[in-house]
Amino acid sequence: MTTIGFLGFGEAASYLAEGLGLAGGTGMLTYDIAQDASPLIRERAARTGTTVVDGPVELARAADVVVSAVVCTQAGAAVDSILDGVSAGMFVLDINSVSPGVKARNAEFVEARGASYVDVAVMSNASADFARLPMLIAGPRAAEAAGLFAPAQPRMTVVSDVPGEAARIKMFRSAFVKGLEALSLEAMMACYPSGVHEKVLASFEETFGQYSFPELVKHLIERHAVHGARRGDELVQVGDSLREVGVEPIMASAGAKRMHWDVERGLQAGFQGGDDPDWIDVLEKLDELRRAEA
Amino acid sequence: MTTIGFLGFGEAASYLAEGLGLAGGTGMLTYDIAQDASPLIRERAARTGTTVVDGPVELARAADVVVSAVVCTQAGAAVDSILDGVSAGMFVLDINSVSPGVKARNAEFVEARGASYVDVAVMSNASADFARLPMLIAGPRAAEAAGLFAPAQPRMTVVSDVPGEAARIKMFRSAFVKGLEALSLEAMMACYPSGVHEKVLASFEETFGQYSFPELVKHLIERHAVHGARRGDELVQVGDSLREVGVEPIMASAGAKRMHWDVERGLQAGFQGGDDPDWIDVLEKLDELRRAEA
Repeated sequence: MTTIGFLGFGEAASYLAEGLGLAGGTGMLTYDIAQDASPLIRERAARTGTTVVDGPVELARAADVVVSAVVCTQAGAAVDSILDGVSAGMFVLDINSVSPGVKARNAEFVEARGASYVDVAVMSNASADFARLPMLIAGPRAAEAAGLFAPAQPRMTVVSDVPGEAARIKMFRSAFVKGLEALSLEAMMACYPSGVHEKVLASFEETFGQYSFPELVKHLIERHAVHGARRGDELVQVGDSLREVGVEPIMASAGAKRMHWDVERGLQAGFQGGDDPDWIDVLEKLDELRRAEA
Repeated sequence: MTTIGFLGFGEAASYLAEGLGLAGGTGMLTYDIAQDASPLIRERAARTGTTVVDGPVELARAADVVVSAVVCTQAGAAVDSILDGVSAGMFVLDINSVSPGVKARNAEFVEARGASYVDVAVMSNASADFARLPMLIAGPRAAEAAGLFAPAQPRMTVVSDVPGEAARIKMFRSAFVKGLEALSLEAMMACYPSGVHEKVLASFEETFGQYSFPELVKHLIERHAVHGARRGDELVQVGDSLREVGVEPIMASAGAKRMHWDVERGLQAGFQGGDDPDWIDVLEKLDELRRAEA
């Protein structure tokens, strides 16, 4: 029987334990830094049939697989705390939402012990059906690790054998999702007092509803290559419009700065006259500008 | 016959003149600050059957309707330059992309002369079929002004009798469109070097393609009211991930700041436990926080 040790027993880990527990056939342990202070941890453990152990090293020694599910600022410290218990042949799955660089660093420490590190990126919000959320995984033995969770029928997709590559897709997707959330807050805060919030959304949908999201992103990048200077200037006007209704234009000012970055470096000069360019040609040119800066 | 005077004869104005000229029945004049330096202005005038006059006051004196179509930083100065020629009963249409405040200010000056100011917001990119682009218009005699352009079959929609209200919808929509453009640049610049650009877009579409854009905005605002603190922290991780590939996280940092603004003011405290709230309740609470700040 595979024994899974949960390092951190918050919502995500306890939902995962619940899925595994219901399926049966897996031993489950946990250590959570808050287990003495918070009765919630022991309640969750009791409910899911998970045994609470006394420390992180003990957890790692007793487990075939450690699942690190802590708060994201502690993802590095969490892996450090188990290292003395990590041995050859075992797995460490890191499901924390951290940068590819942090995951690559954690992988290095785990692999130095002869164990296999698996970068797991949960691609949806935590929910009671956590074990069934789509996850991207990356690492040299990622497919094998996914097999250990088979009883809970996880939706794990191997994207690479290099730890950090799953985190990369998640983080860059989050740049969109959370960025759009911030944009939505700012624009709707500005609209609401004059009651134009529904009108503005309807107007957006009328013009851009024809595009899927990927198509819209490509279209905007292609338009930017030709009209970036004017569009950046308009964001300055947008910023003034937000200030007029008492909303600090945090996103609008950042957007103007983002656009002016490539305008000042001459991106648009290469794309004047003729049809809108292909977005890949624009990305190639942007990458040249980025590399020249580095 | 109605005489229309174009103040500024760039792409937008000349396309509009072309549409009116083809329809016939309208006299057309123009004054452009660059008409002596740039042969392009006189070429456009000749092509569209528009007479070039010597100054802005002369233009206003000879026209029943002045259409101001200059670069957006000059929208105020443009109106100032014609005032001595503006008289009771005539119209001034301001199609520049400027804030509601600038349009309200321009309206005040024009109306002090007994003329009617019309705030025109062009809701799509300039194109050769300019006269047929969707436009929102606002002002006390906006509907009447639209009638003067009838020969070109314009798609003008009156949204308010208060100048600035058309600009408001346009500017707040631009907060989204141009903000999303800036987000797209930043995220795709980060993705491109490791080749995950298509994967990230596909992953977004898989999770969020089920929503129309207005639904997605509402959903993100509702989720933010509950999970804003965690989502803001994740944007800090996103920022680190961008830095790791040499992209300055301008939008990601702004997004974190935008989210932390309401987190620090306690937005989320009111929405814990229970189902996700309705987005209007979230906007109401955000407006309270905004007013408390003002």
